[in-house]
Amino acid sequence: MSEDRQITVIAGGVGAAKFLRGLLGIYPNELVTAVVNVADDFRLHGLAISPDLDTVTYTLSEQVNPATGWGRVGETWRVRDELERLGGQTWFNLGDLDLALHLYRTQRLDEGATLTQVSLEICTRLGIKAQVLPASNQEIHTQLKVQGQGWIDFQDYFVAQQHNVAVEDLRFEGIASASPGPEVISSLKESDAIVIAPSNPFVSIKPILEISGIAAVLRERRQEVVAISPIVGGAALKGPASRMLEELGFERNSVGIASLYKDIARTLVIDEVDSDLSQRVESEGMRALVTNTIMDTPTRAAALASAVLAEVSLAEEDQQ
Amino acid sequence: MSEDRQITVIAGGVGAAKFLRGLLGIYPNELVTAVVNVADDFRLHGLAISPDLDTVTYTLSEQVNPATGWGRVGETWRVRDELERLGGQTWFNLGDLDLALHLYRTQRLDEGATLTQVSLEICTRLGIKAQVLPASNQEIHTQLKVQGQGWIDFQDYFVAQQHNVAVEDLRFEGIASASPGPEVISSLKESDAIVIAPSNPFVSIKPILEISGIAAVLRERRQEVVAISPIVGGAALKGPASRMLEELGFERNSVGIASLYKDIARTLVIDEVDSDLSQRVESEGMRALVTNTIMDTPTRAAALASAVLAEVSLAEEDQQ
Repeated sequence: MSEDRQITVIAGGVGAAKFLRGLLGIYPNELVTAVVNVADDFRLHGLAISPDLDTVTYTLSEQVNPATGWGRVGETWRVRDELERLGGQTWFNLGDLDLALHLYRTQRLDEGATLTQVSLEICTRLGIKAQVLPASNQEIHTQLKVQGQGWIDFQDYFVAQQHNVAVEDLRFEGIASASPGPEVISSLKESDAIVIAPSNPFVSIKPILEISGIAAVLRERRQEVVAISPIVGGAALKGPASRMLEELGFERNSVGIASLYKDIARTLVIDEVDSDLSQRVESEGMRALVTNTIMDTPTRAAALASAVLAEVSLAEEDQQ
Repeated sequence: MSEDRQITVIAGGVGAAKFLRGLLGIYPNELVTAVVNVADDFRLHGLAISPDLDTVTYTLSEQVNPATGWGRVGETWRVRDELERLGGQTWFNLGDLDLALHLYRTQRLDEGATLTQVSLEICTRLGIKAQVLPASNQEIHTQLKVQGQGWIDFQDYFVAQQHNVAVEDLRFEGIASASPGPEVISSLKESDAIVIAPSNPFVSIKPILEISGIAAVLRERRQEVVAISPIVGGAALKGPASRMLEELGFERNSVGIASLYKDIARTLVIDEVDSDLSQRVESEGMRALVTNTIMDTPTRAAALASAVLAEVSLAEEDQQ
């Protein structure tokens, strides 16, 4: 297969992982690259934790907990329960199987491996044939300014406080000096199409786009870029994307998403329930592609992927 | 109870832990301090692991695996098995329950707590009333020069290679700049008696004695110091102590132990099977106290502790 049929997906966590699984069900896996957000990564108990990379990895290797969309199916909590008995921090709820991956990653990073190398090792080990690339090998830390608390770390906002507090501002510590991970820029440049997954535009996609050089490639390649709106009927299917739109001064719907992505993507995929927003998305300067975006089954995720492939003229030839 | 009945035990891992449990069975626990070797401590998977502290803690809280003398009773291996599936390092065999303690310790150290503080927190949590003090809060790393391999780390020698290789030399990286942990010197100075537990003299006791100021206190207080030989009939009950004696140029019996401890301890406790060595131990300038030193049951450990108490004139008054 020629290189010119490659697809790169800019990815956050759960929504991106579901889309990727759908795509891999209908497209040659070795032609798919995911560039995954690392700005949620953090250290806890000395362990290097990469939530979005792990959600993608677990989903693509069919190990994800289907009830949550993240974490491991068949997970157990032996370590966490003992840690609780010892009076330790258990707010992040590290499962036993999940912990093994963090131990593996931390050990490899301590030995001098890059996060990219670790990610490729894990994919090989788990039989994932798509390339899963960290957006950067440098540390980037999302922080949120939230009402009444000032600046707090992402995991405090997202997990400890269950994103149940108003966001006033965002910043990505370290991003000014971060460079894209190996193969990130080349995969974006060489892919036939680029997809922005239905992830949170502020805390999943933005900390990828703001890494030096990435947004520039998307602007250049705008004609081949398709973004999938994470908002359906004014609400995010998961997480705080919709309330953050409003809190940060955007419309709380796919028109708000269009205003964020219009310079870097030609097409915005919006859900059928939002077909009435189609014209307003087009007024923002994007093509609106209306289809089902709710990936509640792998079949529906594959159908969404299929619609995206058609939009970038890869559908007919490449569906398997 | 007055301070002058305090006892401090200089401790390594399994042998020391068994002696301490015996002692705590017959003596007011709050009067007992253990100064524990930290030169086996190391980082694995980013986690701070303190094998001797944990063996003592698990034993004193009745959580130790009775089959091994270290690790947790009822341990499970969920994380290790998954780590193995991922291709990670599993030579150290971290159990799930054990991992929880390492997560706790690593998190607290990362937050700025000292190892001493963490040790006291864990003791409080687990209901241990004796003081368990790390010998130092600085990092000390035992390395061994072994035949044909040069210098290797302690855990490589002890766990990965099962101490199945000849030792030519020893060194304790970092010990020159390490200072005793808080309360270590004061507990040695203020105790009515000091016991050197039946631990490996080279890799458990020596890296405590060589910390600045500790051997000097023992020399000053030699009349109140009792050492328990870890060698019974020419063999260590556990570990490589006896072969190391020979490899490093000492007699492979309690006379060899006496030649190591004669300047810092008045009495050497030797096992009944070695009663014929009694005079030779005394020729080295130590009192020889002959009794059963095999702590195969808590009752026998208590009997040994009782004999040690009698030797330092604490037995009559304090036995409970």
